[in-house]
Amino acid sequence: MRGMEWNGREIRILDQTRLPRREVWLTLSTTAQIARAITGMRIRGAPALGIIGAYGVAQAALRSKAKTTLGVFRDAEKAGAVLAFTRPTAVNLAWAINRTLDAGRAVVESADRDAIVKTLAEEANFIAEEDARACDAIARVGQEFVVPGARVLTHCNTGLLCTGGSGTALGVIRLAHESGKDIKVLATETRPLLQGARLTAWELGTLGVPHALIPDSAGPALLSRGEVDVVIVGADRIAANGDVANKIGTYSLALAAREAGVPFVVAAPVSTIDLAVPSGDLIPVEERSPDEVLSVLGTRVAPVGTGAVNPAFDVTPARFVTAIVTERGVVRPPFAESLRALVQPSS
Amino acid sequence: MRGMEWNGREIRILDQTRLPRREVWLTLSTTAQIARAITGMRIRGAPALGIIGAYGVAQAALRSKAKTTLGVFRDAEKAGAVLAFTRPTAVNLAWAINRTLDAGRAVVESADRDAIVKTLAEEANFIAEEDARACDAIARVGQEFVVPGARVLTHCNTGLLCTGGSGTALGVIRLAHESGKDIKVLATETRPLLQGARLTAWELGTLGVPHALIPDSAGPALLSRGEVDVVIVGADRIAANGDVANKIGTYSLALAAREAGVPFVVAAPVSTIDLAVPSGDLIPVEERSPDEVLSVLGTRVAPVGTGAVNPAFDVTPARFVTAIVTERGVVRPPFAESLRALVQPSS
Repeated sequence: MRGMEWNGREIRILDQTRLPRREVWLTLSTTAQIARAITGMRIRGAPALGIIGAYGVAQAALRSKAKTTLGVFRDAEKAGAVLAFTRPTAVNLAWAINRTLDAGRAVVESADRDAIVKTLAEEANFIAEEDARACDAIARVGQEFVVPGARVLTHCNTGLLCTGGSGTALGVIRLAHESGKDIKVLATETRPLLQGARLTAWELGTLGVPHALIPDSAGPALLSRGEVDVVIVGADRIAANGDVANKIGTYSLALAAREAGVPFVVAAPVSTIDLAVPSGDLIPVEERSPDEVLSVLGTRVAPVGTGAVNPAFDVTPARFVTAIVTERGVVRPPFAESLRALVQPSS
Repeated sequence: MRGMEWNGREIRILDQTRLPRREVWLTLSTTAQIARAITGMRIRGAPALGIIGAYGVAQAALRSKAKTTLGVFRDAEKAGAVLAFTRPTAVNLAWAINRTLDAGRAVVESADRDAIVKTLAEEANFIAEEDARACDAIARVGQEFVVPGARVLTHCNTGLLCTGGSGTALGVIRLAHESGKDIKVLATETRPLLQGARLTAWELGTLGVPHALIPDSAGPALLSRGEVDVVIVGADRIAANGDVANKIGTYSLALAAREAGVPFVVAAPVSTIDLAVPSGDLIPVEERSPDEVLSVLGTRVAPVGTGAVNPAFDVTPARFVTAIVTERGVVRPPFAESLRALVQPSS
């Protein structure tokens, strides 16, 4: 079960806005189609955005009508520029696009038309495979935070639909379950787009993990009542100081976890760490359409004339983060030092 | 505009589950009908529950087929017992029922059949009128917490629909607007039943108060971003030590307000204060049906097989509460002393 496929020519995605009621696969043949699928949240999740961005660059080269190798590469660059701006917060998108283009740039003067396409496609495939391996490693590394019988609270969706593998936070949860740890999961419904209610519940159900949905606002209250042993979430971007941008609502869970003395763990691949951004207040936070709040499942809830404020993400200060679980190991405070050592081990 | 009427014989309520799309008035002629309307959230809000409980007692006496005054009073008591258990958290319900029955009990030995009915109905009317006056006083008293230009965050619905007057927290907001303070309101949508999106937005729109809806989980994030000047909420029960039970999600707002150094103000009538409950952990918190979370507006969101945890309220510790605004004035920490002095001024 995957949420995205690349057959060497076209990208196919499982439309995440239709789940769990319908499993609809979309074929994306052009950069514009990919961009619309991303902005429309048909595909989402930081690692998955990176992978589709890389495939989008490769596909643009493949479909380029340019006669020269450089012309093909320029078309790939143009696609990358379009896709990199579709969503501003997750750093994985720009990271994967740049990495794919860098691979192409390294051979553009020596390669022919076919070779540049092949290089870009190979790099995109490699990014996808690397993410799948990263998920497996994150799942293993994260086990130290899940004791047998743990009641685990998670937020939004961080599983196979939004990574190249079994997920980040949900990968940790999945492995804990498969290891026989007898865990129970509390999953936030994750308004406004209900990724928790629609996607996380669906993945947990498929995997047979005992779980219950909660309204987002109940998470902090359940923490205060002593009903949660650990909070595990993903991340869209981690600043150099350890501040974490993630789905709106993460901040309130981190705050309540600290108040309750419960570990707050972030599970994310190294590609999510952005050392170029010193602190969380400099991470761009996407403001999405008010319609997502004013309507639910396509039915208008709020009266005509009412507007909405709809930030897609919030920033959790590093001081509330117990640990960051990556494929290279656990990172702990002080994060400024530990994150730099993790990302740039040679320096 | 009112959300409830009593014509001396029948109770009529504006069905809060149908707003804002439709304004449907329901006539409640029996105790069973009232109980179903309360459990089905067709009428809600702590003060309004008290008022309908009192009217329910009076109506049961009026409709009693008993031949004796005592028999009529016993039927009123039975109705009170049924209604008092419909929702456990808001103390106003049991408070108003007991107060109405106490008024009847005081005359039951001397009164005839008509007189006991009249006594109960008068007490119920008096409770409603008193609540309307309390709302006006709360609105005035609360003005010290709303500076001109303030950005006010509120939660759930605390206006005319759920009180006998202009509301508690929303009454403060309304008077601030009508006083020309040029305020802006951020209203949480209030999952699972969306009282903010459906009712608060409707009331604010009707009153012409500038406002925007936010997902519940965005409230703490907006507080952390410095976009809120004051949080004002209502209460369903206030313990003797100042702990506040209120709509689920209140706790996370209080926690974030403290973290941001923003005042967190509770507006509630004195009838909400329950000195018999020493602290918040002893307040019964109603757990409502998982269906409220699993479905939105009647459409199932979560996959089959997924359950939900759905506490209707949470408890905010007194240490996060800046002040409690009542019709008798502002109560400040230490609450154990100030609440006792407010409720029992003679002792």
